[in-house]
Amino acid sequence: MAVYTEVSDEDLTAFVAEYDIGPVRSCKGIAEGIENSNYLLATGAGMYILTLYEKRVDPGDLPFFLGLMGHLAARGIPCPVPLAGRDGDSLRSLCGRPAAIITFLDGMWPRRVTLAHCAGLGAGMARLHLAGRDFPMRRENDLSLAGWRPLLEASRGHADQVSPGLMATLEAELDFLEANWPAGLPAGVIHADLFPDNVFFQGEALSGFIDFYFACNDTFAYDLAVCLNAWCFEKDLDFNVTKARRLLTAYRAVRDFSAAETAALPILARGSALRFLLTRLYDWWNTPPGALVTRKDPLEYLARLRFHQGIAGPGAYGLD
Amino acid sequence: MAVYTEVSDEDLTAFVAEYDIGPVRSCKGIAEGIENSNYLLATGAGMYILTLYEKRVDPGDLPFFLGLMGHLAARGIPCPVPLAGRDGDSLRSLCGRPAAIITFLDGMWPRRVTLAHCAGLGAGMARLHLAGRDFPMRRENDLSLAGWRPLLEASRGHADQVSPGLMATLEAELDFLEANWPAGLPAGVIHADLFPDNVFFQGEALSGFIDFYFACNDTFAYDLAVCLNAWCFEKDLDFNVTKARRLLTAYRAVRDFSAAETAALPILARGSALRFLLTRLYDWWNTPPGALVTRKDPLEYLARLRFHQGIAGPGAYGLD
Repeated sequence: MAVYTEVSDEDLTAFVAEYDIGPVRSCKGIAEGIENSNYLLATGAGMYILTLYEKRVDPGDLPFFLGLMGHLAARGIPCPVPLAGRDGDSLRSLCGRPAAIITFLDGMWPRRVTLAHCAGLGAGMARLHLAGRDFPMRRENDLSLAGWRPLLEASRGHADQVSPGLMATLEAELDFLEANWPAGLPAGVIHADLFPDNVFFQGEALSGFIDFYFACNDTFAYDLAVCLNAWCFEKDLDFNVTKARRLLTAYRAVRDFSAAETAALPILARGSALRFLLTRLYDWWNTPPGALVTRKDPLEYLARLRFHQGIAGPGAYGLD
Repeated sequence: MAVYTEVSDEDLTAFVAEYDIGPVRSCKGIAEGIENSNYLLATGAGMYILTLYEKRVDPGDLPFFLGLMGHLAARGIPCPVPLAGRDGDSLRSLCGRPAAIITFLDGMWPRRVTLAHCAGLGAGMARLHLAGRDFPMRRENDLSLAGWRPLLEASRGHADQVSPGLMATLEAELDFLEANWPAGLPAGVIHADLFPDNVFFQGEALSGFIDFYFACNDTFAYDLAVCLNAWCFEKDLDFNVTKARRLLTAYRAVRDFSAAETAALPILARGSALRFLLTRLYDWWNTPPGALVTRKDPLEYLARLRFHQGIAGPGAYGLD
């Protein structure tokens, strides 16, 4: 679950009174998301999401995240918009934590990903990339290549307990990625965490992107690589090339990508697989027993990594 | 958290189509409650709670629970009402589990209990007791006296690891309760689990009772005893006699209780303390590590039990 901070009714009433959204009708913790405390807040004016930013979010990054949501929404990307209080500020404080009220988006994230979802995601992500091009703030991707070596070192004592030989496998992979990581590809603001639970649909139509708290400036194609891993493998970890083709084709119809981007997809997909493997591995050993969070299996990402290591080229993703 | 069953959008859409509440706008798991899977469901017609009953609820009891909510609501008690589908049934099936959509109640449960909350609770509980008198169904309290011996035996191997000597303390207490448990007191339908998180307020006004899944036929005063334990001890486990007095006085103003009920309160409070101690003790050893539930400390109820053992009589609860 994701309610780390219990908000008293008195504190909540005082907080909400700083906005023009009427009195609190109800406020319930949401069992989704793992980084922050999220509440579904109903007031006289409607439904909102109240987020308290917990310790894994750097408060210094919040103006980037909240500013980006406002920027994208103003350009027609369906994403939550931070509400401003009467004083004009959207980033406030509640129970000693940075907090914001954001708009509520209709839709549900897909529990079973279909080809139509992949197509909607591809087109929507391309629009998101285009809409972010004139966003004036910058945030480096601290979970890209430069961040992986320290994460790997932090798991040195534990990796082989998860799977014998894992540490050596990951060191060899990181050596390869450091030697071959592409540079100079088209870049801009990316979401960087476009898992199915961060993308809402109504039926088969994309209705919203949420959870921009890993958004950063990086290669556009890296977002595609994250999605190849997160959307195009089946539960048995078989790669579904038809889903990949629909994702990439739908993206390309909105923002075509260059030959260099296509050629880089396999290595970006390897890097993305390593990134989630490393953070899951770290969390596996560093999640306290009472944390109310489901630890995610790092080895699911080892299977993905091995798939991308084994392919002949980007044709394996269904590209011509 | 309390989402044990993930509902796919296809299954949800088909389920909601059996009701007259418009299309699904959103459905989010709620991080409250520990027995069932609860979702906040928004449709074209408004907000509802979707509950999937998990294995701790006996499906045979559901007609009692759902029928009771409808009965009480029809008599002006603010509680959720099960919605009937187009075929007239309110108890349905989703993802292989019994499921129901119930109405949404405004309000929040009090994180900090005040005297006004205790007064609102007392009056509301008395009204609930009166409103249930003509409810035609019956359900025995399987977590009263007869249920405690098997629960205690199930913890025999573990109790002393929680606190040295605990098993002997609990056996002696249960011997005492079995020899002295009162009979013949006024009885009817009670809620039996009136903890603060099951009672909603807006400001200081009671706005709803929820979670009727322990409701049963038992002594009315047992519900009062549960509330003495759940509402009238401070975080440091000191008993707050002022809160108890407000609770009991407000109850009595709606449904006066007899001298026999007053006299029985201390032993009922001991029984109620033992009941929650025993279920928490059982859960302490039987909650799987990944259960996403915060285990509750059984010893908080040992402190309450010792308080009630040590008092001279019901005057300690602030009664004249």
